[in-house]
Parts: sequence; C-alpha cells; structure tokens
Amino acid sequence: MAKKNNISKNQEFITRDSFPDSKKIYVNGEIHKSVKVAMREIHVDKNGKNPVRYPTYDTSGPYTDPDIELDITKGLPKIREEWILERDDVEIAGEFSSTFANMERKKQELIPLKFINRKPLVAKSGENVSQMHYAKKGIVTPEMEYVAIRENQKIQEFFNDRDLFSNHPGEQFYSELPDGVVTPEFVRSEVASGRAIIPSNINHPESEPMIIGSNFLVKINANIGNSAVTSSIGEEVEKAVWACRWGADTIMDLSTGANIHHTREWIIRNSPVPIGTVPIYQALEKVNGVPEDLDWDVFKDTLIEQAEQGVSYFTIHAGVLLRYIPMTVQRRTGIVSRGGSIMAKWCLSHHKENFLYTKFEEICDLMKKYDVAFSLGDGLRPGSIYDANDEAQFAELDTLGELTKIAWNHDIQVMIEGPGHVPMQMIKENMLKENKICEGAPFYTLGPLTTDVAPGYDHITSAIGAAMIGWYGTSMLCYVTPKEHLGLPNKDDVKTGVISYKIAAHAANLAKGHITSQLRDNLLSKARFEFRWEDQFNLSLDPDTARLFHDETLPSQNAKVAHFCSMCGPKFCSMKITQDIIKEFGSKDEINSELKKKAKEFKDAGGDIYIKANS
Amino acid sequence: MAKKNNISKNQEFITRDSFPDSKKIYVNGEIHKSVKVAMREIHVDKNGKNPVRYPTYDTSGPYTDPDIELDITKGLPKIREEWILERDDVEIAGEFSSTFANMERKKQELIPLKFINRKPLVAKSGENVSQMHYAKKGIVTPEMEYVAIRENQKIQEFFNDRDLFSNHPGEQFYSELPDGVVTPEFVRSEVASGRAIIPSNINHPESEPMIIGSNFLVKINANIGNSAVTSSIGEEVEKAVWACRWGADTIMDLSTGANIHHTREWIIRNSPVPIGTVPIYQALEKVNGVPEDLDWDVFKDTLIEQAEQGVSYFTIHAGVLLRYIPMTVQRRTGIVSRGGSIMAKWCLSHHKENFLYTKFEEICDLMKKYDVAFSLGDGLRPGSIYDANDEAQFAELDTLGELTKIAWNHDIQVMIEGPGHVPMQMIKENMLKENKICEGAPFYTLGPLTTDVAPGYDHITSAIGAAMIGWYGTSMLCYVTPKEHLGLPNKDDVKTGVISYKIAAHAANLAKGHITSQLRDNLLSKARFEFRWEDQFNLSLDPDTARLFHDETLPSQNAKVAHFCSMCGPKFCSMKITQDIIKEFGSKDEINSELKKKAKEFKDAGGDIYIKANS
Repeated sequence: MAKKNNISKNQEFITRDSFPDSKKIYVNGEIHKSVKVAMREIHVDKNGKNPVRYPTYDTSGPYTDPDIELDITKGLPKIREEWILERDDVEIAGEFSSTFANMERKKQELIPLKFINRKPLVAKSGENVSQMHYAKKGIVTPEMEYVAIRENQKIQEFFNDRDLFSNHPGEQFYSELPDGVVTPEFVRSEVASGRAIIPSNINHPESEPMIIGSNFLVKINANIGNSAVTSSIGEEVEKAVWACRWGADTIMDLSTGANIHHTREWIIRNSPVPIGTVPIYQALEKVNGVPEDLDWDVFKDTLIEQAEQGVSYFTIHAGVLLRYIPMTVQRRTGIVSRGGSIMAKWCLSHHKENFLYTKFEEICDLMKKYDVAFSLGDGLRPGSIYDANDEAQFAELDTLGELTKIAWNHDIQVMIEGPGHVPMQMIKENMLKENKICEGAPFYTLGPLTTDVAPGYDHITSAIGAAMIGWYGTSMLCYVTPKEHLGLPNKDDVKTGVISYKIAAHAANLAKGHITSQLRDNLLSKARFEFRWEDQFNLSLDPDTARLFHDETLPSQNAKVAHFCSMCGPKFCSMKITQDIIKEFGSKDEINSELKKKAKEFKDAGGDIYIKANS
Repeated sequence: MAKKNNISKNQEFITRDSFPDSKKIYVNGEIHKSVKVAMREIHVDKNGKNPVRYPTYDTSGPYTDPDIELDITKGLPKIREEWILERDDVEIAGEFSSTFANMERKKQELIPLKFINRKPLVAKSGENVSQMHYAKKGIVTPEMEYVAIRENQKIQEFFNDRDLFSNHPGEQFYSELPDGVVTPEFVRSEVASGRAIIPSNINHPESEPMIIGSNFLVKINANIGNSAVTSSIGEEVEKAVWACRWGADTIMDLSTGANIHHTREWIIRNSPVPIGTVPIYQALEKVNGVPEDLDWDVFKDTLIEQAEQGVSYFTIHAGVLLRYIPMTVQRRTGIVSRGGSIMAKWCLSHHKENFLYTKFEEICDLMKKYDVAFSLGDGLRPGSIYDANDEAQFAELDTLGELTKIAWNHDIQVMIEGPGHVPMQMIKENMLKENKICEGAPFYTLGPLTTDVAPGYDHITSAIGAAMIGWYGTSMLCYVTPKEHLGLPNKDDVKTGVISYKIAAHAANLAKGHITSQLRDNLLSKARFEFRWEDQFNLSLDPDTARLFHDETLPSQNAKVAHFCSMCGPKFCSMKITQDIIKEFGSKDEINSELKKKAKEFKDAGGDIYIKANS
C-alpha cells in the first residue's frame, strides 16, 4: 500500500512513506508551462462501481513521491529557481551579506555541520522582488498561477457529479468567482490589495508556492525548533518533514539553541513549505540573552542573515511601544509573547522607543530585496482569559494597522499576528477589529485558547477558538500542541498539534463554503455509509490512526469489508439497518408511493393510521 | 499527595485516589438541614502569601473522599432516601413489576451476578413523584436546594476579592439573579417552567442531585457500556466511576451485551450521577435483534424494569414518524441513530405509525411514577455534514416539540436530543429552532461534529461544535470519544472524551458568563504567572496529565519551583521577563510616572522620543 523507497543512504530517519492508495500528481500551468502543481490523488472505491480520483491539497512535498530521489545533504529540487531568475531582477551575491553568517560559515569547527556552499540571491540595486510588487504592476507570476491551481484542487472535474456536493453551501467567500473557481488573476488582485500574501523568499526556491488570505483555504503553521534540549540536525529536518506530511502549510523555526545558523540552512534547503522565524530570538542569543544589550546593528545583521538563507516571513514585534507597557502591568499574566517581553524590557531599560518601530522603514527596505513578508507580532497578546481584548492588546493592534500601511507603501507583504487566550464570546471582535484596522491584511492567530484550565489539552482548548476565528476570516492558524505551557513538544505532539489544526482549518473552510473542502467530507461519508473502510481511512486526515483504532478491536482483514464495527456490533449498526431499509423498500419515491398506497387502504377501510398522541 | 485508602478487599480496580491538594467538603443546606452538598476544595498557594481554598463542582462522588468506606457489593450511601420517603407519596413494591426483571432475578445460574436484594419504590396510586410536579406546586425540594448550592460553588465567599473575577463577563444568562447567585427558588421556577430538569428517579437515591438547563452550568454526559466485547461487572462499575472522576455529570449505559439487567443494577447502585438509557436497545435484545418483532408489551416491560432499577432518563425515539422515513432515503448517510433506524424499520415493516408515538401518553403515565425524565431522541439526526439541518431532521424536531408539551401536561421532565454532524455556520439554527419549537426545554446534543474528515479525532471535531452550541444555550453535551465511527472506546478513550467535553462545557460557561467558571481560569492563570507549578497542575481539568507532560522534560522537584519550563527555557520565558520588569520598575503607576518623568526630560532637552516610523 504505502511505498517506501528512493531514500538515500543513512537517511532512514526521514519519513518517506507515501499515503495509502494515493498517488502524487502534477497539474500543469496554462500561463506558465513550467508550473507543475503537486497534489495527492486519493483513489476512492478503486475496485468498485464508482471509482473516483480525489485530488487533495498536499503540503508533504516530494517526500511522498516515491519516484523522486532525495538526499537531504543536497536539498529539495529548486522548483522556483527558473521563475526567479527569469524575472531578471536579482543577482547572485558573492558571499553572505551578514557578518555573523560569514563568521559562522568560516568556523573550522563547524565545517562538519555545514550544508553545501550556496550563494544567496539579492535584488538588483533599486529592485523590489516581492510578489506584491509584481501584483501591483499587473504581473501574474508563476507563483500566482501555482496557488490558483493548488487552491482549486481540480474541482472543475467534479462539476458534472453534483451529487458529490452539498446542497447547502457555507457563507460563500467567493462572490466574485463563478462556481468558486480561483483564477490566477484573482490571486494577483488579492495580493495587490494586500488581502493575501504568497510568502516566497527568492532564497527558498525549493518551496512550493502557497497563499495566505481570507478568500482562500485557511492555512496552518507548525512551530518547530529546540530550546534547552539539543537535537541533531537530521532530527530537526525530520521534524519539518513530519509536520509538512500531516499538513503544515508553513513552518516557523523557533530554535534558540546552538548552531542555529547551520540548523536553519538544513531545514530550509529541505523544506517544501515557506519558513518563518522570529529574528529577535537569534539576535538575543548573539548578545548572550541580555535584552538590554540588543541594538539595531545586531538585529539588522540577523535579518540579512536569515533573509539570505531563505526565510519567507519574519515576526517583528514593532507594535510594542514604550507607552503601552504600563498597560500590561496589572494584567493577570503580563506579557506572554517572548518577543514582546524582550522588546518591553529593552524599551524600559533604555527609556527609548522600540527600535523595531523607529527603524521600521529600514526593515522594509531590506525585506523587499528578498521578498520576506512581515508577520507583525502581537507582543502584547493576552495570555489568559482575564486579559483578553484589553487596552494593551488593542493599543498595539492600532500600531500594527499603522505599520501595515507603511509596509504596503513599500510593496511588502504583510500579515498580522493575533491572540492568544480569548473566551468564545470575544473572539469575533478580534477578527472585526483586525480586519478594519489593518484594512484586510491576513490575520494569523495563535489559537485562540478558549479557556486556561486545561494544560495538557491546549491543542483542544485552542482548536475550538481556531475553528471559530478561521470561520470569521482568519487566514492562517498557528498550531498549539498538547505540551503548550508545560514543555517542549516531541514528534507525537507535533503530529497531534498539526492534525488538530487541520481539523480547525477544515471546519472553517466548510463554514466559509469552500466546495473543495465539502467534497472531501461527502466522499468520506459516502464511503462510511457504504462500509468502504479502507476508503474511509484513506480520505481521513490521519489514515494511520483511523486504521489503528479500527483494528484495535477488529483486526482481521475481513472486518475491513464488514458492515459494522465494534462500536455498535452487527445487530445495532444503524447504517446497516438503513441500507436494509433501502434494499427492502427501494428508493424514496418507491417508499413514498408504498406509503400512499397503504394510507389509501387504511382510509378506504375507515382506519386511522395517524393516531395523534395527544388525542 | 493523593490518598488511597478505605477500599474494600478485592476491589482495588475501583479508582479511589483523591485529587492532589484537594479535600472533599460538604456544604449544608439552609432550608433542608439534611442537604449536604459535596464539593472538591482545591488548596491553592497553600504555603504562600495568599492561600485560597477554591471549591469546585465535583462529580466524582464519595470515591474521592478517603474518609468514606465503600464497598461496591453494598453500593453507595443513599443520600436521597430520607427526602424521598418524607414526601410520603411512594410505597415499597413487593417485588419488581417487570416480568423480565423478576425472571432474570430468579434465574439460578445468574445468582452469582446478582446485587443484594432491594425492593423498588413506586409512586402511590394516583401520585406523581416528578421534580417538575413538585416545582409546579411551589415546593422547593431538597434536590432543588442541593443543586442551587452546587451550582454556586460558594462563589459568595469570593465576592470580597474582586481581583479574582474578570472585568468582562460573558453574555450573562442570569439576568434575574443578583451577582449570578442561584437560589433554590430560582431552581424551582426553572424546573416548573420546563427550562431545566433534575433527573432523579426515586429508585436511584444514591445519586447526587444535578440540574440540566440553559440557565445553569453546561453539563456533559459520558456513554459507557459494552457491545460485542464482554467485560466483567466490576469493570463496568469502574468505567462509570472513572467517567465521573473526570467530570461526567450523567452516564448513559448503552450496554447491549449479556446479563444487561444485572450489570445495570451494579452500575446504578454504585453511581453518584444519574443514569440514562435507551430502552429500545434492551427491548430489541429481548426479541433477538429483529426490529420487526418489537411490540408495545415488550417495550413497556423494559421501561418498568429500568425505571424500578433507578434509571433517571430514557431516550425515546418517538419522533421518528412513518411519513418522515422517505425523507432520509436520499441522504448521504441515511439514519445514523441506532434507535431511529430500529424504529424506522419497525414502522416500514408493519406499515404502522411508531408505537413510541402512539403510546406516548401511556409512557408518560408510567414515567411519572418513578420520576424518569424524557430525553426525546433525535432518531433522524444527520450523520454527515451533507445531511445537516435537512427536512427529515427538522420534521422530527417539530414532532418532538409536540411531544414536549404532552409530557409537560403530565408534569414529566423533558430534554431534547440534538445532532450529530453540523458545519459551524449551521449550528446556531439548531439551537434557535429547538428553543422555539420545544419552548425552552433543555437541549442535549451529541457534539455536533463540525467535519466528517477526521475519524480518530472526533473528540476534537465535535468539541468545537459542542463548545459553540453550549455557548448558544445547549444544556448538556454528550461526549464523543476518539474511537467514534471506528470501535468501542477503552478506558483511556473515555477519559479523553470526558476531558475534551469538560473543556467544551467550560469554554461555554465562560462565554455565557458563569462567574464561578471564570474564577477557576483566573486562579490557574495567576498560578501560572507566579510559577506555582503545583497549583497550575491542581487547578487543571487533568492534574495527572499536566504534571506528566511537565515532568517529561524537567522531572526534578526543583523544576516545580523554577521560573520557566522546557518550552522556552530560562532565557526566553516571557513571564519571567515580565516579572523582572515589574520587580525592576514597580507598579503600573510607578512605571507610568517614570515614563512621564523621562518624557519630560526629553522634552525639556528638545529631544523627540516618539520618532514616528513613517516620518
């Protein structure tokens, strides 16, 4: 079923299984012939009467294509390289422009950790290489066509089978799009308006283009990275591969340990999804963990270092202003954003305004050279239900709105980070305010957690809030794992977090009326009703767990075709009984006409079939 | 920390650990001196500056009180017996009134399985012993006073410490109640109006009174019971004890296996929470699993059997009418309720109206003799997103509304079961319709699941829907375990299901503005901010898992007082940095005045501290 091959020597720790009864397919672009959009095609009812090949959105990258030979010491194929070079607005830098990067890369003792040499790209003098810049000039880039095809998942091929669609679409977000089909031009216009971003650093040509915006499928982000615990570089790469396998649309590398420069290089070279970071973490490492010692120079060098490695978005806590800090002192949990607390301490220590704010335009000038997007950090987000939607949080949001417009003036892509801990009745206000203040810039939220009382289960407390805010219009959901507040997530936690957030995102997509999402539910439920167990497993977000749970009580191969499971047993399976009814009594019309006939018989006989209970 | 004692010989499989740093307390009634309401008092910051004893709602029963000696062969103390007998409207039946029960109880080969002899109670001729009946007559029963005290959790004692409350209450459901404090008279009026029920069969005097209604804390139900797999009676009791330990407010025993009568007796005698059942399951067993062979006599005998054992609510699928069945034939997943499909098959086979509907008033006459409440089953609930809110579902709901009024005419307590599978944007309609059609009768929903695509994770897909519908006004949430659609849940699954639903219910309580719920979040977040790890664990819904996850990476006892965890490590802990800020710079006022002073210095010096980024 699942194939495992083409793996380079001594890299067995990288998960390369393909999914059961699935095939990697590549859909060709029409505007740009070099565009080949990867999807996972699930073969449903393959030996039955109505076989369907369902193409699903696939974030797993080449790892699930057994026909591609991979070697993490060489990195993934550079699918975007040609597109980037063809635009003729970049040049190859002689070496890294960051002092720190060059230092690290020349250290004798770190040579064994070094990824193969690579010369970074940088925009030619005066050029802006951001997708927003192209979009505003009316250019439909290959990246834009890629995401249009990717979002559609070949839905057009299913239009003749209306039975597979719902008869009650959600709150349609696609009013401009006939049948909900995304066009490359629509993608361009959304990026130009700032309502969507395509994170695509020119130094991460290995990444498969994806779009973040409220008129597209809701995306999820998984955080990886180590803190105290040391993990090998190979393990870090596998963590990223693993998170993508289960559905992470982007990955944030939040490592703060040793050899952070080299680790990041390995992750980016082997990541099929865009990578985000919080550069202030590394900057703080460079000043030995003392926030007061941070300054613009060390921060700027860090931005350049990471931009030249290929990071596609930076969390920048530029909204933590000196005058907002006193607003947090009487909170229940103060400042809970790491970056926010670092900048607050810096501001107070120096009695100066946050340098991320005062140097914001310099940051813009730098980011446009690589197409790094802003993820404007919510350094003052609430860390408890008590602190939700308070003065500090919304004061910062006003500043993020101001900064959004500045970034847009530079044609820099922007998204806005959001809370945090928020009770359900206060979630919508966050979305409405963000949308208004930041003029539709994509919202990127952490949960929110809807209660504080369940450490150990915060993937659930937050999946509730995430699903709701996704429905309200949030574009990307940052996952929370079961270890939140307690410790560093392990590989199982990463998977649990990713699946929980795929659920939240998918539930939001359904509520928003994405027909591609509804199709999957319909196919799965049809398989369930028809007792096609393997199809049910294969269409689920986590086929391994679904199969495992089923087999715990009924492991035999026969049980995979049985018309019941151990939950209700054969006699009590409602779906079996319903099928018996249909088999015995025929279609709706037949049952209806049978009922009418009987009713007439009774009437003619003076009988009263419908005895009223209250008569 | 956790005590384990006073357990009878050979009953070590019954979980009797008390919770860490917690004590069982009993709060006395004022109207009824015999009322002693059990709560769990969590000792917070016990050796610190601000010790708090937080009394929390506790469903675990006497099992977590190490001072009570228990023996499952004798059953729990009968706390309600005196109240029931004092009303002088019941008599002791000579033997069971059910033919089947008497047959089972006399079988020689089943003697080893038999619980000690017990003579059931029944209302005296012409009497109605339902809580609704008393409520309508203006009587505040001990049960009503018990639930009033229980709901309040001694919140009045915290009113002087306003700092512990939120400054943004939720959507206050308690407009009639000053400070949100529930009075016994309010309980009575809610029960009289039908907006709340207190399931309290006179034959389950061991149960601690609890209330289900939209103006009270949201409750959760856990299903237990075996199907194909045989489990020992002791294991079944432990499953119930286990579910209550983690927070189940009621338990539905859905067993369909062998020796069902005796198993139920053991569960009820040892359950501190009301028990619900779906009597049609056992009735079907009695006719060898052939729906067509069901009839009123066998069903009626089953109702009497279970009522005399002490079941407090019956799911009755009386809304599955003959004429609604054709509406389900073209669904994606037909009829997914077991009871619904059984009745549908019966109706079609006989071409007759559902006997649960035609005999509804006879059922009422029977239930009032024991105070069994109706849980009007939604036999036509949707089993897939595709089928949500369809014609069949809402047609049945209309009938349930009609039946509610009939039951109320008999002073029988009623709740209404709800879906099922519903996408987020269609959830609210369910609540609004139920509330209107059933005139405020408590809604009791299964989930709803917000997507079909995650078998193995349906505790999460449904916790999202459950939290939302709980916020909208659903009174009780029926849990879903990770095994849903795949197999029979084991003990771990039961716990995961219960905790997921405690999260949903708690999130809903916060959103509804229950100040008792907000207090727990505030205490926990305060502990979190002050690095009181043990308090954080103890206040969480599952202290064992929280502690385990923390200790996975930092197991030493020292780490329990450390000002960081392994998630961010010492240098990056935002809360530590915030505390440093407060320590270094003082209170909000001090920071403010410090800022003003500095601002003035800058101004006086002609400086410009707030350099605008866009200037």
